[in-house]
Amino acid sequence: MPAHKDALGLVSGRTRVFGIVGDPIEQVRSPEMFTAEFRRRGRDAVLVPIHVRPEDFDACLPELLKVANLDGLIFTIPYKARALHLANVVGPNAQIVGAINALARMGDGRWKADIFDGLGCVEAFRRQGIGFVDRRVMLLGAGGAGSAIAVAIAFEHPRSLQIYDPDAARGETLAAKVKRVDPKIAVAVDVPKVTGIDVLLNASPIGMLEDARLPLEVERLPRELVIFDAIVTPERTPLLVLAETCGCATIGGREMMRGQSDAMVDFFGYPET
Amino acid sequence: MPAHKDALGLVSGRTRVFGIVGDPIEQVRSPEMFTAEFRRRGRDAVLVPIHVRPEDFDACLPELLKVANLDGLIFTIPYKARALHLANVVGPNAQIVGAINALARMGDGRWKADIFDGLGCVEAFRRQGIGFVDRRVMLLGAGGAGSAIAVAIAFEHPRSLQIYDPDAARGETLAAKVKRVDPKIAVAVDVPKVTGIDVLLNASPIGMLEDARLPLEVERLPRELVIFDAIVTPERTPLLVLAETCGCATIGGREMMRGQSDAMVDFFGYPET
Repeated sequence: MPAHKDALGLVSGRTRVFGIVGDPIEQVRSPEMFTAEFRRRGRDAVLVPIHVRPEDFDACLPELLKVANLDGLIFTIPYKARALHLANVVGPNAQIVGAINALARMGDGRWKADIFDGLGCVEAFRRQGIGFVDRRVMLLGAGGAGSAIAVAIAFEHPRSLQIYDPDAARGETLAAKVKRVDPKIAVAVDVPKVTGIDVLLNASPIGMLEDARLPLEVERLPRELVIFDAIVTPERTPLLVLAETCGCATIGGREMMRGQSDAMVDFFGYPET
Repeated sequence: MPAHKDALGLVSGRTRVFGIVGDPIEQVRSPEMFTAEFRRRGRDAVLVPIHVRPEDFDACLPELLKVANLDGLIFTIPYKARALHLANVVGPNAQIVGAINALARMGDGRWKADIFDGLGCVEAFRRQGIGFVDRRVMLLGAGGAGSAIAVAIAFEHPRSLQIYDPDAARGETLAAKVKRVDPKIAVAVDVPKVTGIDVLLNASPIGMLEDARLPLEVERLPRELVIFDAIVTPERTPLLVLAETCGCATIGGREMMRGQSDAMVDFFGYPET
């Protein structure tokens, strides 16, 4: 039985420990987000930043996993691919993407892993009542975030998935991964477009922070399109502002993050009660 | 500049991390005590429990020290002696005792260590305006706590230090350590007594929890004696209750703990501002 959340102090000898491993680490938001969510769910657990330098990662991580009250780790830049081999059991998304972002201790002491970046996008759509079955999807950006999103969507069986990346080879690599999930999806590497599709996803960095550009050259968006932008800051990216102007349904990076972190807290063994 | 304490959240990507390493770990009080004290001093830092099993300690600890935002560790049972070799610079108390309980990262990246168990006792006396210079001291118990206390007091140059332990060899070993600190102290292994002394210290476990016994056979204590008991629970041990009845000055385990943890937070680089 979880302790009542009001009875939880900051941290005690019984507190279970989680961490986020990255380099650099100061900018990560997971410590406050996950610690708050653990407590909201009545769990005595804390998630702390763990700054591991690249030259130390391979020796340090297996030893960190021996800490007996450490129950899970999140991996961020630059470790998502490098952490894959730490897991004894790898989830379907991570197997295809070739990277993980969450590692959780199982009841038998082994470690399971998966990547939730893309699952957070799918979950954010689901919370707005929008599914991907039989949809025609255009994805901009085939980097880390784009790859995870494309693979997670592939498991939802869209009709087609068109991928644009300025690095064509990177687009082709991702297209092959999508085909591995579901050979029936019509996958193509193509230029950005807004016609003949139902959903437009931006997973490129264009529009981030002070960047006022759109990730594709358009002046209007068809109002029946659903527009998603993975960028978290700003919350209302140039693409989302245009989409609202055009009357499109929109889903943003913060909704993806919320869907992702909720699914990860479940994965860490603390389901909503 | 430390952030204002009201602005500190629970934990963020910028939070500095400290730990207490032991086996078992659930019973430790340091996570709440130190985290609260860090915050009271306006520092964005947290101290978490780190449960390392004995078979993992030697491989795990050197790797843990590579975590770049980990700034210090506390060691508790059974690791105080085993952790000594992790330090690059060892303080005077720890050198004599042959054990450490605190390890702190220095500005140049190396690690300094010392043992504060005994320093906490000396600090508790100092806060009551009582020094050890030229005093005649009787110590009951030459285990881990007793050893640290005797060595810390030896650095204060008492006139004499008499040590009682049911294991005479253990008493002799500690007497030799006291001699190493200051050969001018009259050190002897002796039976418990309350005459010809100024300060009586209990560092034995007798009187702990439900144990209603006194650590020595007496019915009264001379009222000019200062009585110290290292036991934390109960706060008023049978010895301290008798001492109060007899009009003696008393100092308890909680005052030692407070003196110790304040000195350790200083050692971790967060002095009172």
